[in-house]
Amino acid sequence: MTDQAPDFDAAFREKLAQLFAWRRDVRRFREEPVAPEILERLLAVADRAPSVGLSQPWRFVLVDAPAARAAIRASFEACNADALQGYDGDKAALYAGLKLQGLDEAPHQLAVFCDPDPDQGSGLGRRTMPETLDFSAVGAIQTLWLAARAEGIGLGWVSILDPEVLNGALDVPAEWRFIAYLCIGYPATVSDTPELETAGWETRSPVRDRILRR
Amino acid sequence: MTDQAPDFDAAFREKLAQLFAWRRDVRRFREEPVAPEILERLLAVADRAPSVGLSQPWRFVLVDAPAARAAIRASFEACNADALQGYDGDKAALYAGLKLQGLDEAPHQLAVFCDPDPDQGSGLGRRTMPETLDFSAVGAIQTLWLAARAEGIGLGWVSILDPEVLNGALDVPAEWRFIAYLCIGYPATVSDTPELETAGWETRSPVRDRILRR
Repeated sequence: MTDQAPDFDAAFREKLAQLFAWRRDVRRFREEPVAPEILERLLAVADRAPSVGLSQPWRFVLVDAPAARAAIRASFEACNADALQGYDGDKAALYAGLKLQGLDEAPHQLAVFCDPDPDQGSGLGRRTMPETLDFSAVGAIQTLWLAARAEGIGLGWVSILDPEVLNGALDVPAEWRFIAYLCIGYPATVSDTPELETAGWETRSPVRDRILRR
Repeated sequence: MTDQAPDFDAAFREKLAQLFAWRRDVRRFREEPVAPEILERLLAVADRAPSVGLSQPWRFVLVDAPAARAAIRASFEACNADALQGYDGDKAALYAGLKLQGLDEAPHQLAVFCDPDPDQGSGLGRRTMPETLDFSAVGAIQTLWLAARAEGIGLGWVSILDPEVLNGALDVPAEWRFIAYLCIGYPATVSDTPELETAGWETRSPVRDRILRR
């Protein structure tokens, strides 16, 4: 503990704004692996995320086993085929052409789970909203995402999966809640524009549409 | 769109690591308000968070009305009294002495909701895990938290609330999901140590306890 607070000056804040703007969901990776010490440092940074009651409920599973990766890849294929059925005509054709994950190329894959009843924290802050445990895990992911981007490393969040498949494929406790499956590696391209926007699926709308006053 | 990617150098990364380390859940605020243009800039930055299918499902409600604030304050009191009943002996005494929110002092209060079925994004990525909409809103909150801290502004997340009270008190659609209630303002103190740790409630544990390999 120290009370020597760092000075976050205007130059840092400008760069930080660029970091937020240039963080992307990456689905196109180079093969080159990330050095183990960098990966470990990134997980340590993610671990500094806020958590309800200081419970640190996130659980990080680094996935290397080919069988586990194949099971997760198969779950994506099945769920994505189902999702395609939900669109018609031009939208279906557009959807079918999107690259929504980098599971084949990403050198590193990280599953994030949440312990739904951790001892740490003694239950503080989550009695009326137990989902705040899951939310804590998400804060860790966004922290990881930003820290990775600052090192030139891309992260892609794969959500088109059957959560029930994950716990089995990775042999983690059945009660852990699956939060996210993340592809990690050096990106093949960088951009400040989301790939879904480039591909013509969706565009961002102005923030004023999402601000209310009461 | 531009392909002129910024250079995030070692000096920036070091400062960024400090930002992660010095982000705190703040419950003690000075009265001085945050300038409206800074608040708006922070919300615009939060709006750059990742969202499933580029759906931007978060909804920001700036709460100024005394009646709304009073209703939310009352919900905290009721929920916190219930929570205290869950502890015995020394733990109960410790809990009763914790300051868990800054609702009386914070000049700004922001409720965050999630639209559970936004048109934007056309449903992409959330068919098997609809909770990824909520997760997107949480990513926006963590982004806001970090951007605020870089401006010397503190944020405190109040989760000891009855979600059903919030939609009514703030007159937002009943189907919106309440995610978080945030107190915002300049902190009365700064520290790199969580207040729950200083108060003796909980300590952080090593990240290695939360990393598995498969």
